[in-house]
Amino acid sequence: MKKDSNTSPTWIWYPGDFEIWLGNIFNNRRTERGAHFPPFWKQDSHWPTVEFSKSFTLDREETITIACEGQCNLALDGKLQSVAQGTVSQEAATGHYRFTVPQGAHKLNLKVWNQATPPALYIAGDTIRSDNSWLATYEDKLWIDENGVAHGSGIYVPAASWHFNDIATPPSAFRLERKEQLPVVSEAMTVGDNLGMLYDFGRETFGYLKVRGLEGTVCVYYGESREEALDKQHCETLDCLTTDSRNDVEADSKAFRYVYVEPTEGSTYGEVLMDYEYAPYDQTHSGTFRCSDELLNRIWQVGAYTMDLTTREFFMDGIKRDRWTWSGDAIQSYLMNYYLRFDTECVKRTIRQLRGKDPVTAHVNTIMDYTFYWFKSILDYYLYTGDDAFVCEMWPRMVTLMDYVLQRTDAEGMIEGKPDDWIFVDWVDFPMHKRGTLCFEQLLFCKALDTMAVCARIAASHAVAGHADYGALAHALRNKIKQTFWSYERQAYLHAIENGQLNSQVTKFPNMFAIVYGFSNEQERKEIMQSVMLNPDVDPITTPYMRFYELEALCMMGYHRQVLAEMRDYWGGMLNEGATSFWEKYVPAESGTQHLAMYGRPYGKSLCHAWGASPVYLLGKYYLGVSPTKPGYEEYEVRPVLGDLQWMEGDVPTPQGIIHVEVNARQVKVRSTHGKGTLIVDDRRVDIAPNEEVCIEINKKQ
Amino acid sequence: MKKDSNTSPTWIWYPGDFEIWLGNIFNNRRTERGAHFPPFWKQDSHWPTVEFSKSFTLDREETITIACEGQCNLALDGKLQSVAQGTVSQEAATGHYRFTVPQGAHKLNLKVWNQATPPALYIAGDTIRSDNSWLATYEDKLWIDENGVAHGSGIYVPAASWHFNDIATPPSAFRLERKEQLPVVSEAMTVGDNLGMLYDFGRETFGYLKVRGLEGTVCVYYGESREEALDKQHCETLDCLTTDSRNDVEADSKAFRYVYVEPTEGSTYGEVLMDYEYAPYDQTHSGTFRCSDELLNRIWQVGAYTMDLTTREFFMDGIKRDRWTWSGDAIQSYLMNYYLRFDTECVKRTIRQLRGKDPVTAHVNTIMDYTFYWFKSILDYYLYTGDDAFVCEMWPRMVTLMDYVLQRTDAEGMIEGKPDDWIFVDWVDFPMHKRGTLCFEQLLFCKALDTMAVCARIAASHAVAGHADYGALAHALRNKIKQTFWSYERQAYLHAIENGQLNSQVTKFPNMFAIVYGFSNEQERKEIMQSVMLNPDVDPITTPYMRFYELEALCMMGYHRQVLAEMRDYWGGMLNEGATSFWEKYVPAESGTQHLAMYGRPYGKSLCHAWGASPVYLLGKYYLGVSPTKPGYEEYEVRPVLGDLQWMEGDVPTPQGIIHVEVNARQVKVRSTHGKGTLIVDDRRVDIAPNEEVCIEINKKQ
Repeated sequence: MKKDSNTSPTWIWYPGDFEIWLGNIFNNRRTERGAHFPPFWKQDSHWPTVEFSKSFTLDREETITIACEGQCNLALDGKLQSVAQGTVSQEAATGHYRFTVPQGAHKLNLKVWNQATPPALYIAGDTIRSDNSWLATYEDKLWIDENGVAHGSGIYVPAASWHFNDIATPPSAFRLERKEQLPVVSEAMTVGDNLGMLYDFGRETFGYLKVRGLEGTVCVYYGESREEALDKQHCETLDCLTTDSRNDVEADSKAFRYVYVEPTEGSTYGEVLMDYEYAPYDQTHSGTFRCSDELLNRIWQVGAYTMDLTTREFFMDGIKRDRWTWSGDAIQSYLMNYYLRFDTECVKRTIRQLRGKDPVTAHVNTIMDYTFYWFKSILDYYLYTGDDAFVCEMWPRMVTLMDYVLQRTDAEGMIEGKPDDWIFVDWVDFPMHKRGTLCFEQLLFCKALDTMAVCARIAASHAVAGHADYGALAHALRNKIKQTFWSYERQAYLHAIENGQLNSQVTKFPNMFAIVYGFSNEQERKEIMQSVMLNPDVDPITTPYMRFYELEALCMMGYHRQVLAEMRDYWGGMLNEGATSFWEKYVPAESGTQHLAMYGRPYGKSLCHAWGASPVYLLGKYYLGVSPTKPGYEEYEVRPVLGDLQWMEGDVPTPQGIIHVEVNARQVKVRSTHGKGTLIVDDRRVDIAPNEEVCIEINKKQ
Repeated sequence: MKKDSNTSPTWIWYPGDFEIWLGNIFNNRRTERGAHFPPFWKQDSHWPTVEFSKSFTLDREETITIACEGQCNLALDGKLQSVAQGTVSQEAATGHYRFTVPQGAHKLNLKVWNQATPPALYIAGDTIRSDNSWLATYEDKLWIDENGVAHGSGIYVPAASWHFNDIATPPSAFRLERKEQLPVVSEAMTVGDNLGMLYDFGRETFGYLKVRGLEGTVCVYYGESREEALDKQHCETLDCLTTDSRNDVEADSKAFRYVYVEPTEGSTYGEVLMDYEYAPYDQTHSGTFRCSDELLNRIWQVGAYTMDLTTREFFMDGIKRDRWTWSGDAIQSYLMNYYLRFDTECVKRTIRQLRGKDPVTAHVNTIMDYTFYWFKSILDYYLYTGDDAFVCEMWPRMVTLMDYVLQRTDAEGMIEGKPDDWIFVDWVDFPMHKRGTLCFEQLLFCKALDTMAVCARIAASHAVAGHADYGALAHALRNKIKQTFWSYERQAYLHAIENGQLNSQVTKFPNMFAIVYGFSNEQERKEIMQSVMLNPDVDPITTPYMRFYELEALCMMGYHRQVLAEMRDYWGGMLNEGATSFWEKYVPAESGTQHLAMYGRPYGKSLCHAWGASPVYLLGKYYLGVSPTKPGYEEYEVRPVLGDLQWMEGDVPTPQGIIHVEVNARQVKVRSTHGKGTLIVDDRRVDIAPNEEVCIEINKKQ
């Protein structure tokens, strides 16, 4: 995974700062009926001054070209150089600097200062090239004693880079890709006393509405539904576009399928179209799924499109309204992404952005559960990618976030939401207290401690830092949870301790996490299935968000047929309602415009919400049956399960390739490019070597 | 001190963020021979998104004008408003928004996002006006539950403001004042083979060199001395100014008395002059000093000019080379300033800027002593101004900085410099170890704890926060210091514990602080005077920095005549060497260009250094004898001491006025405008009431 220093130079910056800066832009794009709508939590900034350094030994002198975003200096072996001294020259046309490094052993240190965008550096020479072999620090703590001797004790980390290999395209110039799209239907409409045009782009989309040849003002009302676009008083997003003389104008990016465009009196305009904006991906390194059931195929495809719409600079939850990064939503996006685009850069960006910077002043997104998911997402990332370097990069910020959590625990080592903590769990339609010491939160907390214990070992093996004994804390908490919340009588985890009293409500939330996060043994899991998960008296889950875990628990317990039926019913139900992407919430009993409302607002519901796409994950992991068993798919298993399907086939992306699986009633075929796999069908286990097709004939007993 | 809400509106921002941002610009202006030279320590940023809020009850509806630096939103009673909705309008020419607040009780919340400069807001209405009665937060932690009910738990503080009362002049437009100055002498020179002109501006100055009618390139070599300006290879600052066609050009600000201007071949230019840049002050609210000794008058005047040159956006140490804020230098500037311009805004700005933001990753300026001075400077500020609000503003950052310190103490509660700490003490010419547990550092640490104890009481009385028992820590440390370092035999505080062993070197540093910071009783002070301070065998102090405390100790012990003699000798010595401002260091035994060298560089010494101006403080405090005895001069003492002078007179500024003192051999006269004073002459004590002249006839016994 490490870059060769002989590759082309690339822009470098302080790790995480690109994401902090880009995240502020991203999260500040949210609008509500034309009003700017920043997040509720602290936004951080990049370090405004960063030093980059590297030592070299040159066979011959070498002239380097230096570009930077910000004001920059350069020291050779500790001595500052400058244009005024004549040792540095500057190209008038580009602003790039040139400097000649003499033959021999030398060290270059460059400091870049930039308040508005992350300090970034690009150096191109024959052998001296900026890349992540350079070190970065935000504080060199260098000082010079009375004898002119320099002392320094800054903390240095490898500089960050991505794909900004062109000197003319620095990180601050980063933009997603665009593609022009035309409406599929346009229709003249009268809304109130006004005449306008309704444009239908055919399905949910995201991007920049463009109005050609505008003279005057048009107001634009966006809708994920036709109803929303035509409801000028209640649509969630809108724009007024004005130009003095005839011009092509473009609105800021929005999510919509429909737009209602209404000119003010005397205004004229021409064509209405849009630039679809998207994160590019590699079709040859993507997940696929096809099977004998066309409804499931459509569900997978709409799920994949939902994921593509929400995979952006960061993983976004809902593209119309929320437009912020949310940790609980993101961890599901990451997992789906491992079975779809394997865009690990977007995973890393989102994890970095969600964490922000120290000091920690609130839970991630202010939500306690979301802090715990943030930790777990690093464990998942490590399992799917094997990327030690990222764990080491995040480790210091994992420690300080866990410090924040541990300062808020009680004498029992458990954690209760404080008045300034948002306890989310899920949007629930039944009565459920969210205050007190929730079993659900303890399970997530325990998994966060498990994550710390694993990552502490990785960080220690790279000599990044010492650590507390998180494993011991996790062990103690696990026992405490069982002792406090498990009811032998009801064979379920109970809801909470509130004011010292047990609240013995039974919900699916803690019980399914006990299965999914591996806290329960075989016996307990079976009991939970019967007494909770399959018990019709337990309140149902109505968000795709928690259905993700519910259906995962069912898959883990072998209820594949039942899960397929749920998919057809629930996700198929959305398709029947005309969904072109999956929703934030779906209550089958509702009808018509009831499906559009949420949060007390007629169009408050997001009709394209990442957490709606879970079939992409479930079908890849539990039907094609592919999952890593050692970090980064160094080892993996394939346990295909057809459920009630006649056949299925698909691809699962891995860090270095693809695992292809084909299953029908008679045989299972697997091909893979890398790693050591095991194909498991019933009680048969066959090794999968790279680039060899493995085939198992199925001996149908039943 | 609080603003009336009926005064004019003013720009508001998050407290401290103006200083963080301005400090980055300030500290990044340092150059070394044309190279950009940022600080060695972490630079922070303003909060990029800040929310401002206030509740009102309006007798009638009111239209407000809103200006902001950044992208902004507005919520009325929790509901976002926008131009697109038609509830907000925007003036095309100015970009200002207008919004009408209905009659009745309402709340306004506005969020402003700005990455490049601090988010700032200005609201002008009949009764609704932005000022520091508004609240600010960087994190409202507002969230909306499934019923659309909003919950919030952000931490709100009073918004900050200064004098930006004009809507067209936001905080980011802040600049110091300028005044054009001409050179007093110009002289054609040949340097090497080149011909140029040397311009002498008559005395040390600071600002922007301007070259009129330049066509081509001139190189400019600055010098605080003539030698430096003419030494192209070693002068500390230089510029190359280039223009294609004939233009007036201006260099970035520099400190200099001399400039040598050398055109490249074929280049031509006209007049050379400068814009002197300065912080304006009120001459009628300034300290003055005149006495019978013209040399002392010149010393005071050059000290005052040194202070005026170093009083800028922040208090700067040396205007030529250092150009960063330094805490140990600044605390002396603050004290001198209380006897000169009483520019409390510059004190607050510098204290805020030096502290930066959390997390604390290093000592202030990376120097352990400087952290402790930072605390002490707040105690001083409080004594001279009585400004509770500033103590409350700083309190959270005092707590986290002290947390950092307390994490670094040993089992004895004492503190030793860690490898990444710079232990400065002073520039010393004699052998002195700076590692180990220095008595000097413990005394400063103890004073920092004293400061915490005082400020904790102030903060608690304003319900700002709880606190640890800093008083108890200070008490324990005080005992420990005495027990560890005081030698009854040598009647002195010994130097340090190094590797468990006592280093029994005796230096003036801890001993004079034991007096100045009030750690010693009368008997011990007398012993210290004899055994250390007046003992010729103890190594002398050679920087004006520590002479500040040395002479203060002598004054406190009544050695006024001796201190005057020292002033004439030491500061008079600099004047004899041609000083037009006071120096970073002065060794009387040196001669000629030896006086210019430091740090192994021929012109490394700063010839205008704030810590050189201490006579301004000493003459005001210990000769005119004015000092506050209750915060903010609510009560004060005047204890005039002529020393060997025949007469003296002068003014000392106070928060609300002036204390005027006239003394000759026969009588003492004092007039003051505010506060309850006591004039103390020998054993006589007379009350000083505002606006009444008090006169004591001196009964000369000796």
